[in-house]
Amino acid sequence: MINDEKVKKILFGGDYNPEQWPEEILEEDMKLFKKAGVDVVTLNVFNWAMLQPSEEEYDFSRLDKEMDYLKANNMKVCLATSTAAHPAWMAKKYPEILRTEFSGMRRKFGGRHNSCPNSLVYKKYAVRLATKLAERYKHYDNIVAWHISNEFGGKCYCDTCEKAFRVWLQNRYKTLEALNKAWNTSFWGHTFYAWDEIVVPNLQSEHFEWERSMFQGISLDYARFSSDSMLECYKEEYEAIKRITPEIQITTNLMGFYKELDYHKWAKYMDFVSWDNYPSTDDPYYKMGMDHDLMRGLKDGLPFALMEQTPSVTNWQPYNNLKRPGVMRLWSYQAVAHGSDTIMYFQMRRSIGACEKYHGALIDHVGTGETRVFKECEVLGAELEKLGDEIIGSVVKSKVAILFDWDNWWALEYSAGPSKELRYIKEVFKYYTALAKQNINIDIIGVDADLSPYQLVIAPVLYMIKGDYHKKLEEFVRAGGQFITTFFSGIVDEHDLVTIGGYPGKLRELLGIWVEEIDALPPGEANKLVMTDGRIYSAELLCDLIHLETAEVVAVYGEDFYAGTPAVTVNHFGKGKAWYVGSSSSEEFFIDFLKECLEEVEIKPIMTLSEGLEITRRYKAEIEYTFILNHNKEAKEITFDQEYVDLLRDITYKKGEVLNLSAKDVLLLKAND
Amino acid sequence: MINDEKVKKILFGGDYNPEQWPEEILEEDMKLFKKAGVDVVTLNVFNWAMLQPSEEEYDFSRLDKEMDYLKANNMKVCLATSTAAHPAWMAKKYPEILRTEFSGMRRKFGGRHNSCPNSLVYKKYAVRLATKLAERYKHYDNIVAWHISNEFGGKCYCDTCEKAFRVWLQNRYKTLEALNKAWNTSFWGHTFYAWDEIVVPNLQSEHFEWERSMFQGISLDYARFSSDSMLECYKEEYEAIKRITPEIQITTNLMGFYKELDYHKWAKYMDFVSWDNYPSTDDPYYKMGMDHDLMRGLKDGLPFALMEQTPSVTNWQPYNNLKRPGVMRLWSYQAVAHGSDTIMYFQMRRSIGACEKYHGALIDHVGTGETRVFKECEVLGAELEKLGDEIIGSVVKSKVAILFDWDNWWALEYSAGPSKELRYIKEVFKYYTALAKQNINIDIIGVDADLSPYQLVIAPVLYMIKGDYHKKLEEFVRAGGQFITTFFSGIVDEHDLVTIGGYPGKLRELLGIWVEEIDALPPGEANKLVMTDGRIYSAELLCDLIHLETAEVVAVYGEDFYAGTPAVTVNHFGKGKAWYVGSSSSEEFFIDFLKECLEEVEIKPIMTLSEGLEITRRYKAEIEYTFILNHNKEAKEITFDQEYVDLLRDITYKKGEVLNLSAKDVLLLKAND
Amino acid sequence: MINDEKVKKILFGGDYNPEQWPEEILEEDMKLFKKAGVDVVTLNVFNWAMLQPSEEEYDFSRLDKEMDYLKANNMKVCLATSTAAHPAWMAKKYPEILRTEFSGMRRKFGGRHNSCPNSLVYKKYAVRLATKLAERYKHYDNIVAWHISNEFGGKCYCDTCEKAFRVWLQNRYKTLEALNKAWNTSFWGHTFYAWDEIVVPNLQSEHFEWERSMFQGISLDYARFSSDSMLECYKEEYEAIKRITPEIQITTNLMGFYKELDYHKWAKYMDFVSWDNYPSTDDPYYKMGMDHDLMRGLKDGLPFALMEQTPSVTNWQPYNNLKRPGVMRLWSYQAVAHGSDTIMYFQMRRSIGACEKYHGALIDHVGTGETRVFKECEVLGAELEKLGDEIIGSVVKSKVAILFDWDNWWALEYSAGPSKELRYIKEVFKYYTALAKQNINIDIIGVDADLSPYQLVIAPVLYMIKGDYHKKLEEFVRAGGQFITTFFSGIVDEHDLVTIGGYPGKLRELLGIWVEEIDALPPGEANKLVMTDGRIYSAELLCDLIHLETAEVVAVYGEDFYAGTPAVTVNHFGKGKAWYVGSSSSEEFFIDFLKECLEEVEIKPIMTLSEGLEITRRYKAEIEYTFILNHNKEAKEITFDQEYVDLLRDITYKKGEVLNLSAKDVLLLKAND
Repeated sequence: MINDEKVKKILFGGDYNPEQWPEEILEEDMKLFKKAGVDVVTLNVFNWAMLQPSEEEYDFSRLDKEMDYLKANNMKVCLATSTAAHPAWMAKKYPEILRTEFSGMRRKFGGRHNSCPNSLVYKKYAVRLATKLAERYKHYDNIVAWHISNEFGGKCYCDTCEKAFRVWLQNRYKTLEALNKAWNTSFWGHTFYAWDEIVVPNLQSEHFEWERSMFQGISLDYARFSSDSMLECYKEEYEAIKRITPEIQITTNLMGFYKELDYHKWAKYMDFVSWDNYPSTDDPYYKMGMDHDLMRGLKDGLPFALMEQTPSVTNWQPYNNLKRPGVMRLWSYQAVAHGSDTIMYFQMRRSIGACEKYHGALIDHVGTGETRVFKECEVLGAELEKLGDEIIGSVVKSKVAILFDWDNWWALEYSAGPSKELRYIKEVFKYYTALAKQNINIDIIGVDADLSPYQLVIAPVLYMIKGDYHKKLEEFVRAGGQFITTFFSGIVDEHDLVTIGGYPGKLRELLGIWVEEIDALPPGEANKLVMTDGRIYSAELLCDLIHLETAEVVAVYGEDFYAGTPAVTVNHFGKGKAWYVGSSSSEEFFIDFLKECLEEVEIKPIMTLSEGLEITRRYKAEIEYTFILNHNKEAKEITFDQEYVDLLRDITYKKGEVLNLSAKDVLLLKAND
Repeated sequence: MINDEKVKKILFGGDYNPEQWPEEILEEDMKLFKKAGVDVVTLNVFNWAMLQPSEEEYDFSRLDKEMDYLKANNMKVCLATSTAAHPAWMAKKYPEILRTEFSGMRRKFGGRHNSCPNSLVYKKYAVRLATKLAERYKHYDNIVAWHISNEFGGKCYCDTCEKAFRVWLQNRYKTLEALNKAWNTSFWGHTFYAWDEIVVPNLQSEHFEWERSMFQGISLDYARFSSDSMLECYKEEYEAIKRITPEIQITTNLMGFYKELDYHKWAKYMDFVSWDNYPSTDDPYYKMGMDHDLMRGLKDGLPFALMEQTPSVTNWQPYNNLKRPGVMRLWSYQAVAHGSDTIMYFQMRRSIGACEKYHGALIDHVGTGETRVFKECEVLGAELEKLGDEIIGSVVKSKVAILFDWDNWWALEYSAGPSKELRYIKEVFKYYTALAKQNINIDIIGVDADLSPYQLVIAPVLYMIKGDYHKKLEEFVRAGGQFITTFFSGIVDEHDLVTIGGYPGKLRELLGIWVEEIDALPPGEANKLVMTDGRIYSAELLCDLIHLETAEVVAVYGEDFYAGTPAVTVNHFGKGKAWYVGSSSSEEFFIDFLKECLEEVEIKPIMTLSEGLEITRRYKAEIEYTFILNHNKEAKEITFDQEYVDLLRDITYKKGEVLNLSAKDVLLLKAND
Repeated sequence: MINDEKVKKILFGGDYNPEQWPEEILEEDMKLFKKAGVDVVTLNVFNWAMLQPSEEEYDFSRLDKEMDYLKANNMKVCLATSTAAHPAWMAKKYPEILRTEFSGMRRKFGGRHNSCPNSLVYKKYAVRLATKLAERYKHYDNIVAWHISNEFGGKCYCDTCEKAFRVWLQNRYKTLEALNKAWNTSFWGHTFYAWDEIVVPNLQSEHFEWERSMFQGISLDYARFSSDSMLECYKEEYEAIKRITPEIQITTNLMGFYKELDYHKWAKYMDFVSWDNYPSTDDPYYKMGMDHDLMRGLKDGLPFALMEQTPSVTNWQPYNNLKRPGVMRLWSYQAVAHGSDTIMYFQMRRSIGACEKYHGALIDHVGTGETRVFKECEVLGAELEKLGDEIIGSVVKSKVAILFDWDNWWALEYSAGPSKELRYIKEVFKYYTALAKQNINIDIIGVDADLSPYQLVIAPVLYMIKGDYHKKLEEFVRAGGQFITTFFSGIVDEHDLVTIGGYPGKLRELLGIWVEEIDALPPGEANKLVMTDGRIYSAELLCDLIHLETAEVVAVYGEDFYAGTPAVTVNHFGKGKAWYVGSSSSEEFFIDFLKECLEEVEIKPIMTLSEGLEITRRYKAEIEYTFILNHNKEAKEITFDQEYVDLLRDITYKKGEVLNLSAKDVLLLKAND
């Protein structure tokens, strides 16, 4: 599906659930699919109850018909394993497969993502089903990918998980002494003398809110354990299928900045990354850009699949407005602009019952192709047909990376203090937004990523330094890299234990400062950042009280008892520089500050453009593909910086030529050398 | 009590709990009752523990004394069965009678409305108590009604209910295949292969919020089942009593727009409707009017009983302000104006302990008749005495009906999308308010009601078309009726399954339109309704994107990409017309729009009056009773349209005469022909 | 520690947890302690798991070393018993020691304050540990106090508590008849016929919110029972220790206006009161003053210990800002100014893990004495050294008392009506603030306190009159005292049963009024208080509708239907006066009104000062110590009313001399006669 020799174009299609309809629907749907240019469907996402009507019995007859019909019609299939919701009979017979909530509430049958990830019964039958599917359909050459389960997520707190957690802890810590130390259990006398004294951290034990724990150590480990437990479910299905169809790529659909799962760990076991893009109504386009870049970064920049998006409305938001004309196409190309090699929807045909019946679809309840939404999809389908094998396989490259780490996210937001407004994504997004407005490609990377391709690495709120990660950063800067980090960084190690000896802990040498105190400002209150040249910006959220050691001042505070003390610093370290931004600020600061940082390392905009025009670039061998997307509500002028071929319009633009790009319109340009 | 030959005037009194006091209180209370003109008390509402101190033992001695004393004093009695709260000993001995909450929390003894409606133990002893009461007091000819339990309500989710639900489902669906289809269980693979795989839909299973379900089908059926289960409790007591005292009417006190119970089903088993009127502090008077009209409509317009209202303060609102002088009288007559034949209070004497001790009463904690509240009641009591048999038995008649349906309410608000602001009552209230301001009588009817008496039927957000209800509407319009419905109508059938083939589904032919898409506007955002004559109103909440088929345009949208497309339409159908209002709007629109609709069918105001004066009319044989209520804080002038006798003041007004009606004052007029 | 002959100065130190660190930390800490002037540490607060690693085994080796080291270094010790958090092994072996929440949720191991107070297992081992500690360390003459458990609090609703509650009720009521009457169980037929029909009042039974109960009687008794149950835990440890070390004083750290525990009952069993002062970020300084005065009043004005405060930040508030320079010293002296004889912190060294790792400490994570916070502590330590035995043992005396009663607090806020905005502390605080602004000492007393020392007693919202307390008030006024009470007073007896015969019930004769009705005003709405001389203030929250009996009018309402009726009254009673303030109001009213009341009894300000300067006075034999604290952000001038010695600066101020006291600075003055 991605980097698959059989696939010669951007795949176009999405989730298809014919089992919700009479069998005859296949024929009608196929006509409409062809009209719309659909060439791939994700099949069999929620069919477990149909495929296994009882513990002893399997029935693939309906799926066989669907698979045969699709194959006969040259439709590619992304075949799901149907294990994201167990059958009702299984819940009745084996109630231990049901999850227990954070509140301690034991669930009954219902919903989806409803299986305890440590249930051996669940895993036995999930793997068996995956195996049977692989065996049965291995010869269908129209299968372009396996899709394991669906949107893995949630947490379970049942007794089975409690026992599995203790085993996980023994593997991690070997001795209780090590565990007691890592969790600092001498605080409040929580010392454990036997493994089975440990209970799951939830509202019944160490938590008083979802994100507030009395012992961060256990909560952090439970977050890791939960992510690992789900991953183990994925892996068991993965291995079963791989054994049978080693040549078919395997994925599962991820969900962007989804907190419960450490996708950096997951991506290692995915043949390619795929994900579901459901922005909130009021997300700016940068937010989607950031999501795409995170997803792309999971596999070191390889193309990914946009597995789901809605053709028009969602149904689960407070107010589900229509995607305005052009927006679906615009956002589809935005995915491609950030590295996707597919454009797929949830869903092909709109359900008539249950909770997603008002979620948009290619084929609406009216059942025809005569809708605005269908017609917009049809136009896009035709464009993708025309584009052919252009673009696919090309990659986004960047000289700038933002570090993002799940452990850091979890630990930061489990802690009480210094401010409840301190949210990891929010701070990362401030840096991302300011970078995106410089019209450059941006990578989002994890702690395992090689830093050498980058000239600038930004790690907002790098609260946790795991192991020797500071040495990797030092090496990067020493070799000439530029590094930016912020307030509340370097505070703890991988156990969320504070590094003593002065903040920012292990980053102190690299940054050349000592942070003595941290002041929290309530929303609406601000201090000032006074730059050495006199420019003034706001200082918000937290204000670190900084002592210079080897660093120099970039900005000082403008007010309060620490007025005049350092607020932003820079430290020359080897051939590079390490910046410390001691407070949060407004967009204006981040744009100006990052602009100067980029200039210093001579990273230039891809092109100079008006506000609201997004630009990215993908590379394949010698070819450069440039994407320009007009997110504005009005047309914008573009002056070309070189000669380009317009891949959608088949025309050529001269250098210096000016184009008036319509609202919501898109340019796919190929440099014409 | 209602339509009872023994009752020759508007009954006046209320809930009386002498068992909370020493026996001697009876004498003192009787003096005060007589002073105030009280002639009826509701007795024995919460005495189960007193009447049955243990499983083996009954003790009616105290109640006997009360009944005898009341009879001796010519006081009428509405005799309750005391089954709205079980005794503590029963909860200890048979814990299965306790309810389980929506959260799955099993309750302990406490509160009221605390019995599982499917508990055989509860029902056995409830019916036995009702039977004993009927046997014991059948010869008391001062009993004017039986009052079963009290304010039935709530839901239970216990194991007993779960089992009973499965039986209910088998009766409804016969086969699992039919059930699976009705609930669309193929979605997410929830197919049931055995009845006992089905569990109650609550937070442990299909719900993630009180009103948000992952499977609307099961939740909707559970709402029906719960209402039916409670009704079964009522019916079992009803039948036991009826067998013994067939001549005494039986009721239970309802609660207006109470969501949990489908009162249209209940009313079939009630000899007359009675209800408790507890408006919120900031409810406009139309809201109470709408409540009364709903209650009256349950028994096709028969007079009903105002069973409870507070003489002054409530205690359960955030801020319990005093009813200002005159307001209690005003609201009492408002009930009569809308069809009540009683004026009753909760309560006669204020409790000294437990949660209602700060709820108002005729006799306050001071224990005398020397309070403002008592004196206002006394004035009212004297007026009712004087009115005698005027008014009682007369009925409100209307040419306009608003359709209201519990299934529609439930289904609409269980669904996710398109807007969480879409609330059934709120939309109904917009139409009701605009009609009420036209100074006409209004009926509120259910789907079983005969439409032939009406010239105009309005069905706001008729989301669900059950069975062939659309044919009934078509017939009504074809015969010359005017029908108005709105956005998000005709969407689903009785199982909440979408009617495919284009919205508004089964109403498409009647309305002559196809709704292609539905746009949701967040609060604060609005489009425009541009009428064909150029007038402009706001378009809010939802905007349906409409294609005309046989209908004509009444208004188009003023903005956004669907500017100029139809927003309000009218379809000529047979001899009548069917209007579709594709968006919500502000009061101004509804008033103007409905005014024109009424003019078209020549429905005229009862009288032309200033703002804040309410008018209704009741009819008895040849007599017309006109009620004018001044809800304003100041006096208002009234110019009489004909000659009237003022029943409260014993004077006559000439046609054209002008009266200055004081703030909060009331006119009961009899046409003087 | 307090009134202890061994203690010759204000003790300075705080909570110390060396067990969270390597043993070597002791030496380093001791150096820093000495540098800072620390002379006392609270030790062993959370060591149960360390001291008793299993049911059979105790291990004091580490504590021995610490005790020896501290003794050798002349460090005083406040020795805690470590029973505020049980070990994990105990929870595993005896799960019945775990608490059950208000929701009915049974807890697992975790947190602190986690033991069921009625668990015999918990109490057995808690007392055993306390006994062993007392035996082992009884000869350490540096122990200046025992510190039992830590911040007792919370509630448990488990089966053990349910059974214990029934026993407690039998002791209280003797018969079920008495209980049924006290709880008014005839309401809703909740009559109990056997003690074991009674269940704990929580969300599963009589409560629908934390503070809203359907039966106030049972909820009120459960509040008393819970406080008593915890107190019993305290007392059992107290008695065990007292037997062994009769000469060492015993305390536990209280928490100011902590609702769950009736500290007036507790204080009887405490050798001295100690408490933890953690104001919210936006508390005005009066709020802390009121807390201190409440705490002092628990032991009739004896000096108390400030057991905990943070040297700088807290970590649990939404936004944890730094204590600005000078604030820690200011607030420390404020405690002394209100009667404390210690200045202590939580904590000596900042933890590196778990939920308090971002809570401030004397020694920060940097581990040195080179921080602003340490240095401010050092300055304070030196001052206290210099002050020596001045001040300690002196007492605050007042002629004005505010009555505060836990039963009143509980009963008032369990009731529904008349307004949810009616909060006891809030109303008390209005009176306290206005008094504090008169620059006088204020006592806060309970119902057991002798009233004879006072000229003015204020009892805001004295909702509950327990037993004959009204007679005590009558006697006080008859003898010449002035008494002020407010709306919603005298309503109920000790069972929360309304006193019938007219509000304010038992206070009616003393106040000479009858309150007929109570009107509730929503926030933002106000009536007017029109004083007899024409001044106008706002009337808020509640407006009592008052009839004069023997009282005179002080103010009438200005608006609404009760305009012109009495709002504030005064009744001459014996040689004194009793005032009734029938509504709440703004600060302006309270300041003016109380000023006049004080003038009438000739209570004069200690000194006349600018806004934001706080003044109190302590007395020891012939000596007067005056404290002036500048809470402003700027310097303020003080003109001395007599000659004083400045104890911190060693200078003398003449009468009439003017001093410019810096922002946040403090004066400790000794009258120079």
